[in-house]
Amino acid sequence: MSRFLTPHAALLPSSVPFTGPETLERRQGAPFRARLGANESLFGASPKALAAMRAAVEEVPLYGDPENHDLKQALARHHGCAPENIVVGPGIDGLLGLLCRLTLEPGTPVVTSLGAYPTFAFHVAGYGGRLIRVPYRDDFEDPAALLTAAEREGARLLYLANPDNPMGSHHPGPVIEDLLADLPPQTLLVLDEAYADLAPEGALPRIPADHPQVIRLRTFSKGHGMAGARVGYAIAEPGLALAFDKVRDHFGMNRISQTGALAALEDREWLTHVRDQVARARARIAAIAQENGLSALPSATNFVAVDCGRDGDFARRVLAESLARGLFIRMPGVAPLDRCIRISLGPEPAMDVVAGVLPQALAAARG
Amino acid sequence: MSRFLTPHAALLPSSVPFTGPETLERRQGAPFRARLGANESLFGASPKALAAMRAAVEEVPLYGDPENHDLKQALARHHGCAPENIVVGPGIDGLLGLLCRLTLEPGTPVVTSLGAYPTFAFHVAGYGGRLIRVPYRDDFEDPAALLTAAEREGARLLYLANPDNPMGSHHPGPVIEDLLADLPPQTLLVLDEAYADLAPEGALPRIPADHPQVIRLRTFSKGHGMAGARVGYAIAEPGLALAFDKVRDHFGMNRISQTGALAALEDREWLTHVRDQVARARARIAAIAQENGLSALPSATNFVAVDCGRDGDFARRVLAESLARGLFIRMPGVAPLDRCIRISLGPEPAMDVVAGVLPQALAAARG
Repeated sequence: MSRFLTPHAALLPSSVPFTGPETLERRQGAPFRARLGANESLFGASPKALAAMRAAVEEVPLYGDPENHDLKQALARHHGCAPENIVVGPGIDGLLGLLCRLTLEPGTPVVTSLGAYPTFAFHVAGYGGRLIRVPYRDDFEDPAALLTAAEREGARLLYLANPDNPMGSHHPGPVIEDLLADLPPQTLLVLDEAYADLAPEGALPRIPADHPQVIRLRTFSKGHGMAGARVGYAIAEPGLALAFDKVRDHFGMNRISQTGALAALEDREWLTHVRDQVARARARIAAIAQENGLSALPSATNFVAVDCGRDGDFARRVLAESLARGLFIRMPGVAPLDRCIRISLGPEPAMDVVAGVLPQALAAARG
Repeated sequence: MSRFLTPHAALLPSSVPFTGPETLERRQGAPFRARLGANESLFGASPKALAAMRAAVEEVPLYGDPENHDLKQALARHHGCAPENIVVGPGIDGLLGLLCRLTLEPGTPVVTSLGAYPTFAFHVAGYGGRLIRVPYRDDFEDPAALLTAAEREGARLLYLANPDNPMGSHHPGPVIEDLLADLPPQTLLVLDEAYADLAPEGALPRIPADHPQVIRLRTFSKGHGMAGARVGYAIAEPGLALAFDKVRDHFGMNRISQTGALAALEDREWLTHVRDQVARARARIAAIAQENGLSALPSATNFVAVDCGRDGDFARRVLAESLARGLFIRMPGVAPLDRCIRISLGPEPAMDVVAGVLPQALAAARG
């Protein structure tokens, strides 16, 4: 332990929100046959975005535009808001970190769901915030209970992912609109919409970009298939959006990624194609689950939670046996969600690996 | 102003360490003829790195390895240290931010030079540290005065760039070694070696990677010509290096950049080529300065500070007149350094623009 750390930093655990698939591969000494644990889009990125990025490699000697001007203009047009409502950052993860930095002091109460996105909890803990965790209700995040907790605790932030990760469930837009309307005045809704591009009709709330009590987070990592490019953005009222300029790494955006995101945003046909493919793969996973006597939960995302029908220990054995057979998947971390395994949706060959491995993993877990 | 900001965040200025060249171009309504203000390497990145990145674009749907395993192994081999001594991050800027987060509390004293790298000061202020600024001495950072200030103030961090930015000067390695030996026990030396790849023989100190009182910062943005890829790294004893895992964005590294940096590191021939080209351009700028009755300061970097021979107001006029003529350059921010303009070194066509614009800019500034 270095003696130069602050007392808070010294006490922080060296925890990692997620162990990466490469780390698991190195431990096992073999590459995975199917990489379906990180909700990456194996359907790929827009060919136009790929071409734009390949061309932009030539410009790598230059820093990216620190204002993200062109991308912000395009995002503002896309969302019908002003560029001043947009913050571009290195993925939702990076933006969540900056948001916590801007809003949290040691002990500031923050409400989230028990079993929700660990990286948000990582950042809250990193800035010394006090996490209050509200249980899911029937595999859905529970807006009423989250609201009650936010009121009771005087929460600064209320984090909700819609559609949700890790369960893949979602609330219709009006439910989120009602939650926002009922929010106590001291609470900011952190609405993680990472899976928005894959959500069904009606899942996204209608919220004016200038609403003072919400920040919406979007990403090019999921529907757009560009997780490796690290581009996310937030939509918020200008007073909050501009505050990010106080602390963000102004020259931190990758120039190739800026170009790629712009091209991806303009290729709406590719997103339609991906949505079709995701729907097809979702049906395939449901069928595979059924063939194995399991049930796939409804999903508004590019992954499916599959209920293994027993407790968390059993699902953890199924997970371990799947990993050992070259199938990288993940699972929720807490009961009762942890009766499920979580499988990212991908093209047929990847789904074939699931079909082949799952019966073996289940048999091994049972035996 | 959003009401959700912490009192500290609310008080932070919305200052930007540097205004980007694209912003200046948008203001002027025309692209620059030569972009020589950000010390980007217009000699380009290794063709092998470019090829590796173009190929890696196909993998953009996948997150980068959060452990940066392969790159860390290669960097450790390169520096003759252990992978546990290496922290990979999104450029030195990003790493400086994380370091400040790990080590500073409100009011923690930090020593730097008056006129040194503004992004470091931006991060110190961002975490509430108290900056103590020590004047340069004859266009060099002043190790003895920095040391005295660190002792007097009980500084947690002492920041020194060697070679230096914005003056391009450097101290021989043994001077840095002596500084480190004399450092008070409560002080960590933050040694910014962004320009190490371009420094002359003997400029880099010999310091064991496990030394408990120094963190060295390196980048692929300068000599390697990959500023747009956002890859930097730190070398420190494992207790400090591993502390970055407590707070860093584990999935924040761009996958294409990881691949590109690995290829660049292995292409030592390209770096030799760049060093030759930089030396040639350095001589050319010295000649251009002389033709205009100015003097180029000695430089250990890929830029040159040119003494305009009068005060800061004059140099600011030369800068403005250069910008107006399509030549993007920068200059130091404080007296007496601000008698200089700072010109990045580039290929002949870019140096030709300097040769053409500088006499006009000088004439306009004088008149």
